[in-house]
Amino acid sequence: MNDDVQGKTATQTPLSPDLLRSIDAYWRACNYLSVGMIYLRANPLLREPLKPEHIKRRLLGHWGSDPGQSFVWVHLNRLIKRDHLDVMFVSGPGHGAPATLANSYLEGFYSEIYPDRSYDERGMLRLFRAFSSPGGIGSHCTPETPGSIHEGGELGYSLSHAFGAAFDNPDLIVATIVGDGEAETGPLATSWHSNKFLNPATDGAVLPILHLNGYKIANPTILARIPHDELEALFKGYGYEPHFVEGDEPDVMHQLMAAALERCIGDIRAIQTRARANPDEMTRPRWPMIVLRTPKGWTGPKEVAGHKVENFWRSHQVPVPDPATNPKSLVVLEEWMRSYKPEELFDDEGRLIESLRALAPEGTRRISANPHANGGVLRQALDLPDIRAYACEFEAAAAIYQSPTAVLAAFLRDVIRRNMQTFRLFGPDETASNKLDGVYEASGKRWLAETKPEDADGGALSPTGRVMEMLSEHTLEGWFEGYVLTGRHGLFATYEAFVHVIDSMFNQHAKWLEKAKNELAWRAPVPSINLLITSLVWRQDHNGFTHQDPGFLDVVTNKSPGVVRIYLPPDANCLLSVADHCLRSHDYVNVIVADKQPHLQYLGMDDAIVHCAKGIGIWDWASTDQGCEPDVVIACAGDIATMEALAAVEILKTQCRDLKIRFVNVVDLFRLMPETDHPHGLSDRDFDSIFTRDKPVIFNFHSYASLVHKFTYNRTNHDNIHVHGYRERGNINTPFELAIINGVDRYTLAIDVIDRVPGLASTAAHTKETLKNRIIESVRYAHEEGIDRDEIREWTWKG
Amino acid sequence: MNDDVQGKTATQTPLSPDLLRSIDAYWRACNYLSVGMIYLRANPLLREPLKPEHIKRRLLGHWGSDPGQSFVWVHLNRLIKRDHLDVMFVSGPGHGAPATLANSYLEGFYSEIYPDRSYDERGMLRLFRAFSSPGGIGSHCTPETPGSIHEGGELGYSLSHAFGAAFDNPDLIVATIVGDGEAETGPLATSWHSNKFLNPATDGAVLPILHLNGYKIANPTILARIPHDELEALFKGYGYEPHFVEGDEPDVMHQLMAAALERCIGDIRAIQTRARANPDEMTRPRWPMIVLRTPKGWTGPKEVAGHKVENFWRSHQVPVPDPATNPKSLVVLEEWMRSYKPEELFDDEGRLIESLRALAPEGTRRISANPHANGGVLRQALDLPDIRAYACEFEAAAAIYQSPTAVLAAFLRDVIRRNMQTFRLFGPDETASNKLDGVYEASGKRWLAETKPEDADGGALSPTGRVMEMLSEHTLEGWFEGYVLTGRHGLFATYEAFVHVIDSMFNQHAKWLEKAKNELAWRAPVPSINLLITSLVWRQDHNGFTHQDPGFLDVVTNKSPGVVRIYLPPDANCLLSVADHCLRSHDYVNVIVADKQPHLQYLGMDDAIVHCAKGIGIWDWASTDQGCEPDVVIACAGDIATMEALAAVEILKTQCRDLKIRFVNVVDLFRLMPETDHPHGLSDRDFDSIFTRDKPVIFNFHSYASLVHKFTYNRTNHDNIHVHGYRERGNINTPFELAIINGVDRYTLAIDVIDRVPGLASTAAHTKETLKNRIIESVRYAHEEGIDRDEIREWTWKG
Repeated sequence: MNDDVQGKTATQTPLSPDLLRSIDAYWRACNYLSVGMIYLRANPLLREPLKPEHIKRRLLGHWGSDPGQSFVWVHLNRLIKRDHLDVMFVSGPGHGAPATLANSYLEGFYSEIYPDRSYDERGMLRLFRAFSSPGGIGSHCTPETPGSIHEGGELGYSLSHAFGAAFDNPDLIVATIVGDGEAETGPLATSWHSNKFLNPATDGAVLPILHLNGYKIANPTILARIPHDELEALFKGYGYEPHFVEGDEPDVMHQLMAAALERCIGDIRAIQTRARANPDEMTRPRWPMIVLRTPKGWTGPKEVAGHKVENFWRSHQVPVPDPATNPKSLVVLEEWMRSYKPEELFDDEGRLIESLRALAPEGTRRISANPHANGGVLRQALDLPDIRAYACEFEAAAAIYQSPTAVLAAFLRDVIRRNMQTFRLFGPDETASNKLDGVYEASGKRWLAETKPEDADGGALSPTGRVMEMLSEHTLEGWFEGYVLTGRHGLFATYEAFVHVIDSMFNQHAKWLEKAKNELAWRAPVPSINLLITSLVWRQDHNGFTHQDPGFLDVVTNKSPGVVRIYLPPDANCLLSVADHCLRSHDYVNVIVADKQPHLQYLGMDDAIVHCAKGIGIWDWASTDQGCEPDVVIACAGDIATMEALAAVEILKTQCRDLKIRFVNVVDLFRLMPETDHPHGLSDRDFDSIFTRDKPVIFNFHSYASLVHKFTYNRTNHDNIHVHGYRERGNINTPFELAIINGVDRYTLAIDVIDRVPGLASTAAHTKETLKNRIIESVRYAHEEGIDRDEIREWTWKG
Repeated sequence: MNDDVQGKTATQTPLSPDLLRSIDAYWRACNYLSVGMIYLRANPLLREPLKPEHIKRRLLGHWGSDPGQSFVWVHLNRLIKRDHLDVMFVSGPGHGAPATLANSYLEGFYSEIYPDRSYDERGMLRLFRAFSSPGGIGSHCTPETPGSIHEGGELGYSLSHAFGAAFDNPDLIVATIVGDGEAETGPLATSWHSNKFLNPATDGAVLPILHLNGYKIANPTILARIPHDELEALFKGYGYEPHFVEGDEPDVMHQLMAAALERCIGDIRAIQTRARANPDEMTRPRWPMIVLRTPKGWTGPKEVAGHKVENFWRSHQVPVPDPATNPKSLVVLEEWMRSYKPEELFDDEGRLIESLRALAPEGTRRISANPHANGGVLRQALDLPDIRAYACEFEAAAAIYQSPTAVLAAFLRDVIRRNMQTFRLFGPDETASNKLDGVYEASGKRWLAETKPEDADGGALSPTGRVMEMLSEHTLEGWFEGYVLTGRHGLFATYEAFVHVIDSMFNQHAKWLEKAKNELAWRAPVPSINLLITSLVWRQDHNGFTHQDPGFLDVVTNKSPGVVRIYLPPDANCLLSVADHCLRSHDYVNVIVADKQPHLQYLGMDDAIVHCAKGIGIWDWASTDQGCEPDVVIACAGDIATMEALAAVEILKTQCRDLKIRFVNVVDLFRLMPETDHPHGLSDRDFDSIFTRDKPVIFNFHSYASLVHKFTYNRTNHDNIHVHGYRERGNINTPFELAIINGVDRYTLAIDVIDRVPGLASTAAHTKETLKNRIIESVRYAHEEGIDRDEIREWTWKG
């Protein structure tokens, strides 16, 4: 196959000699600028001979992948112009910003956004000096980079971001350079399978270009060192039709690339035309991809100080290390830069000459100015139904059990129905397990691979399904990020313990948001990432210790307060209210912690809306202080934490009748933080008015206790705040036993109250003894062999 | 190719009719036990008709992958016996414990470890009742499962664990069932490439068996729904020779599997023999693998209540949901269980009949009893050189700069030399970047893919290299875990920000350790996982915001105190001492935070050893309180934090001459925790004696400040502890600017001291003003265009 493709493309010469010369010149300009960014602090166009004082003294930035990336970009430009394409560019290789910056600068868009780096010699010098300098420009595609939705800091997500961008954008082509280093990461390795979820009729296309430049920081890459037949087999195995463009002679390579790209775009259009003509007979197409094998540091110095540089890992970063201090190196650098013939490329003002500028598309067809890459400008609010229609109805608080996520499912079903092109639900094979399968009434699961008749049983597989399920949290999060960064909406439901799989992706997205939101006025707000964390620790009693990990919240609270939100709705109506709020928000990562199991319901819809809007509140109906100063505050956050805290109040009501208890529930966790540290933080005055200045506070928390201490250590009453939470103790337990061994159960809470309220320990000594015995009984009962779990569950939660 | 293989194996019938019958009977026994675990609380051998009261009332556990897994196990048994093989079994599919438990029970080893679940009818019933019951046995391969090093709770790591186990165990074959659901995860998808790092002469073999049973929890799997040619191409692309065993007719499948397994073992032995005869001409072999396509829930009920069950996702968990309450279902279950003919399989005592027991290997050849799967029993201490030989020498504290990791490299080089079969260094393409390239004097980088002459430049690629580099933190951590769980040693060095990529793997390993160490006396201690976190936040000024994330420590501190340790050595000699300590330890995850950049050196080797042994200490030479009660405590943890704290002391010494400062450095972070919460925690008395009971403590911390508050909120003096740390603020900065904007710089610290020490604010008002101005100057200076970074660096750190 490879021979065929190579044969065909090698004989094709789609570029006329003139066009070939122009495209090569444009590419040389890109490469010249990339080198300039790394090296120059003066003399940007080499109008005079290069001198040591023109060289930056600390050399930073990465040359290796730039020429290959610019090579792709200039060839994309040709077809964008010729065929009026709508193209995004996702740059996967690490630290490959010089290529993206050079192109966006040459297209003029960079200077439109950053007028001080103007499109002239002075602006060019400012660009060079700012690159990788304090207060300046990053060496990867940070949010500051126009045309980019993909940060090249942490590797592995280019392809999943690209697919996310292509979903529901039928006219868009997302050209995606996958670095061969990046390709070794797990998230990237599985994201090739995204092609099983892309609908050629209703989605856009992703054109992956594996940039096989052979080396990482200091090693060859795996994919560059396997035989050709393995490489080809691998991508056929992933379901692609690989086109190989291999070589190092620019003139030959330009023709090869032009031909390959023509063929790929042609194949994409043919696939789409076929699918759109007959959308009911959808089969998964074999999408094209390109394997671009070029030397690393292509066109750079072949050898420096006796070391091979071009086509080796030594060209990864700064190929000539010491031009300011080593005259020989200065010559090497100058020869290298002059090999691009800048005098032919730039006019007197320092702008690309007119004939070359004409090669780039115009307006929003410029890749750097593609509006999808600033997706907020395309964002449309979701059409949301009134949550009241989905309310969980009941006569009295704490009287019925209901699965909060099952209630949410009905709401999400109608969100899907009303927003069939702009909302998707993501989940790793757990939508049904997480009791969200009610959404299948609106839409099935996206699936373009083979189907069987039995697939209609349960949520049906469908090429147009709005539910995205793949057993890869990485891919789902990557899709979701790509989807919101291009202006669309979604919700990702996942098991609490395993959301840690995407800790690092969360971190990076939060960092992106912080810069985009707080420092880049030109970036329009994007819809929030909504993470529904479910299958929670307290009901992972049967799955055991591996499934018990509520620690994601600690990761979240380290990120910038401007972009993260955490909600722990205590019941179904609160979950509805929180979800509604989150789906209307933008520029956040909203973390919603809500379980799938049946839980007690407390608040009617109106009360829930008020409670969630405040984010924290005293529940008078559960309190016994009747508005006076209480003897003790019992606080809680999370479903089981709330139930057990309420049960503790019930015990204390009967056992310690005069005790004045204030019951506080926290939905919006950041309310606990000082207002100086988080926009949702309570003032000290408000905090004190809820938690008192000197009374014991027994706080029952969903997650690890220390998180509450971390938020409250500066509060007036912090000495008296005693937090119960998950203590990393569990195995196969009954739910109640799990609560007990971690000390979040009603008995332990009640005992703590007795111990903490002055004077109570003596009067309630008998009660305390009784409660201790009930704990011992409960654990013994749980461990008696042959006890059936359901019996225990009934007993524990209601008893 | 597939046709060939199928053709060849289909015509082969390696099993005699008798043996076929016996193997099938053994397999039926496995399946019977698996079903029994899910359903029965009485009548374990169906000696009487099945009644509702024999059925557990809450049905838990997973049937789907069990018959396929047991099928593999029984066929492995045949070849272990025939060829005297040493075989481990890694069970990748989620919740597949019933198969493993059934086999280890039938081999007798389960009862040897857990005598109460004896090898007789009573013990069988106890096994059934304990399965997925409170206080009992997990539904995946928890540490309690003999023969397993691989927890099937979180998916994706079976293959990397298997390769880790095979490294340096030349006689071992690690048969690894990869679930087709698991295969969709990123970590699994890239771990197939581990074959480029396995040396057929000196390592053992991994035999991957992709169990293509078609379904996950509620969806088909991708790999089961792509055409055969794509599937075959994919695994050829990954570098394997796939053998297909496909079908559902047990008698046919037994012959196919027997033949395929014979051929695979034969191929493995041939590859190894060839490589071992001529180890100098090493090339990467094409290792065999098996694609086992069977129905999910094979041999279970075909249909239940009108739903397809066998060969569909509905057989994932409990195929017959209601046998206790639905008489029809009870019949279905009874027919299903009786289809295995238990009366033919078990004798009167409830033991497998003698003739079938003879099919299993004996002693340590039993897969369940393989000593590698309880690797601590094979553990040998490392031969470690004396760290004094590698000490960083200097005349005075804070006089020279040195890269701590470069110093460590010399020590690690000799650790490698002395332990060429039992120690490996892991790193994602960053060993040189992290300044550990000194180890290449001892050994190169492991590489079995193609090489080129230039690969000798820099750390050489070699089939015997002890340095494991692949751009996948997941794969490296998986290898490392597999390596230590089979009793060997290592160290994994990685960028601080991107260690979050393996948060979840860390969590799961810590959970494994906690159970193995604290609850399972039969599991011998395994060497520690040593994570060297480097390229630290404070010197990621040039890489920017994405590379600044010191939050892994927060994840670590949530895990059980018995198994996690965190060290922040302030200089190179302390790093040596800490590393030495960690490499001697077992059953921990040791997290060492140490940078690669040149840093000031403080402690001579002897002082460093004493300081690190204590884990926290007052540095008299940096203090001005001369042993009296100080006015203020300046504390620090981390390299830059220490330097800036020392610089603050220098400022205060000259500006506030009478101020009595106590200088405290923390190496062992858990010393800050109460002794009741962590074994390394200081008693309150000791804590108070260091930090005083009432004086201001200005604590300069490497990571997010709240972590120190989380550890100290209960200490006597906690109201006075003021922590400076990373505030999630950064971009492209100078190092000093980065310190300033996060408030960990000398000026901000000195100002804080002036503000906190009673009475000082008025006398030192002028000093404070001066310091504020220096902050403003520093930031302005950093941002002046064209300032060279090196100048700034010199100025900042020394000035």
